[in-house]
Amino acid sequence: MNSLIVYAHPEPKSLNGSLKDLAISTLRTAGHEVRVSDLYAMRWKAVVDATDYGPEASNPLRVARDSGRAFDAGTLTPDVLIEQEKLRWADVIIFQFPLWWYTMPAILKGWVDRVFSSHFAYGVGEYSDTRFGDRFGEGTLAGRKALLSVTVGGSESHYCARGINGPIEDLLFPIQHGILYHPGIEVLPPFVLYSADRLTSEDYADVAKAWKQRLLTLDSTEPIAFRQQNSGDYEIPSLRLKEGVEPAGRTGFGLHLRH
Amino acid sequence: MNSLIVYAHPEPKSLNGSLKDLAISTLRTAGHEVRVSDLYAMRWKAVVDATDYGPEASNPLRVARDSGRAFDAGTLTPDVLIEQEKLRWADVIIFQFPLWWYTMPAILKGWVDRVFSSHFAYGVGEYSDTRFGDRFGEGTLAGRKALLSVTVGGSESHYCARGINGPIEDLLFPIQHGILYHPGIEVLPPFVLYSADRLTSEDYADVAKAWKQRLLTLDSTEPIAFRQQNSGDYEIPSLRLKEGVEPAGRTGFGLHLRH
Repeated sequence: MNSLIVYAHPEPKSLNGSLKDLAISTLRTAGHEVRVSDLYAMRWKAVVDATDYGPEASNPLRVARDSGRAFDAGTLTPDVLIEQEKLRWADVIIFQFPLWWYTMPAILKGWVDRVFSSHFAYGVGEYSDTRFGDRFGEGTLAGRKALLSVTVGGSESHYCARGINGPIEDLLFPIQHGILYHPGIEVLPPFVLYSADRLTSEDYADVAKAWKQRLLTLDSTEPIAFRQQNSGDYEIPSLRLKEGVEPAGRTGFGLHLRH
Repeated sequence: MNSLIVYAHPEPKSLNGSLKDLAISTLRTAGHEVRVSDLYAMRWKAVVDATDYGPEASNPLRVARDSGRAFDAGTLTPDVLIEQEKLRWADVIIFQFPLWWYTMPAILKGWVDRVFSSHFAYGVGEYSDTRFGDRFGEGTLAGRKALLSVTVGGSESHYCARGINGPIEDLLFPIQHGILYHPGIEVLPPFVLYSADRLTSEDYADVAKAWKQRLLTLDSTEPIAFRQQNSGDYEIPSLRLKEGVEPAGRTGFGLHLRH
């Protein structure tokens, strides 16, 4: 299997750095090909601007349209083209990052903003009475799996169903469903490490064991059961979930799970 | 009133640029003092790294601890100190940005990651049997109001209660509650403009009218009724919402609304 690790932490000796290193060694030992996008080490340009679209950048700049034109013309910048090639190459993509302000660090968001260009990760496929593009379960990256490995400062109870921060699965929904499932990637349940700032070396042994276990069972882990957009569950083009397809009492982001 | 506009779009002639300009002129005409953080024009450094914490950066770097130490020592970088000063000065903070991949652009996330340092926006206040710091309704920025003004490519139906992207209020919850309410800012309902890429000049007249109306009624607009963390609604320190305080059937992020 081909595995891509996208890693976003400024400190190589951090917990995130250790989990990234452990993922590399574990997957290689298990026979995977592994490539790493270490965004800090690569000095990844986090900010979308006109220079991203070269000669296809119009004046005034139109981000969605120009990014699609540059994608079609093959004139996206080399750093972005390399990341798109890595994504096509990968069977599994692992994202390793700390949860900062309830979502990914800016450098990783900037990787998404630039690499997930129009005509690559969105604006793909046919629009008709029965289809609204290749999105949410279909798309350029269909057939691939992703897994978020996230460290969190707060306690697990703060992120449970009644926790003040909201349930972790809802906080991650815009990433797992909105970013990853959108271009067709199936998303495995996340590996979330709470109280990360209070972790001791003894705790780390258990964490490492659990993380290795997850890495060695990627193949047999069921993805999150997001509903495919063009499966018949949604009205086209309103993309409203049809009435009555969900279990009684289901609301919010949870509506978009098949069962 | 003192108004701060934090604006994140690479194109001055964009819809976001027009809405930002309209906010400046409308608020100034109404007698507000207005300051603007135009993140692209400022070439805002989006990425947290050791240089942010100067002599307080430890080796290995520990982001949360070191940012708090640099805040205490007054050695955060000048760009961050200026933004913190603007936030203290402001009565109202308006964020103008396009929704990219269901959240803010990387440059704005990087403003949050760097400006909302420890001991300024988190890690503030007393921890006891009845208090878990000054958070969620209390904190350094209590007494201020914020409003998100967001442009969205998709249709409103895609973001309604049953829409495939999830309800807009849930997508914005990690920003409105997690980022803004956390250091004490009251959050007004957002101004959301859907189908932004298909907006015509005729539509814009209506949009401008609605936006001016919102800007001229900031004072009389009720904030979103998030529950205060230390109000008694939550168990301390688990921060679980106590059983039975919510209306029947309420789940997910909506649990954290008072009514």
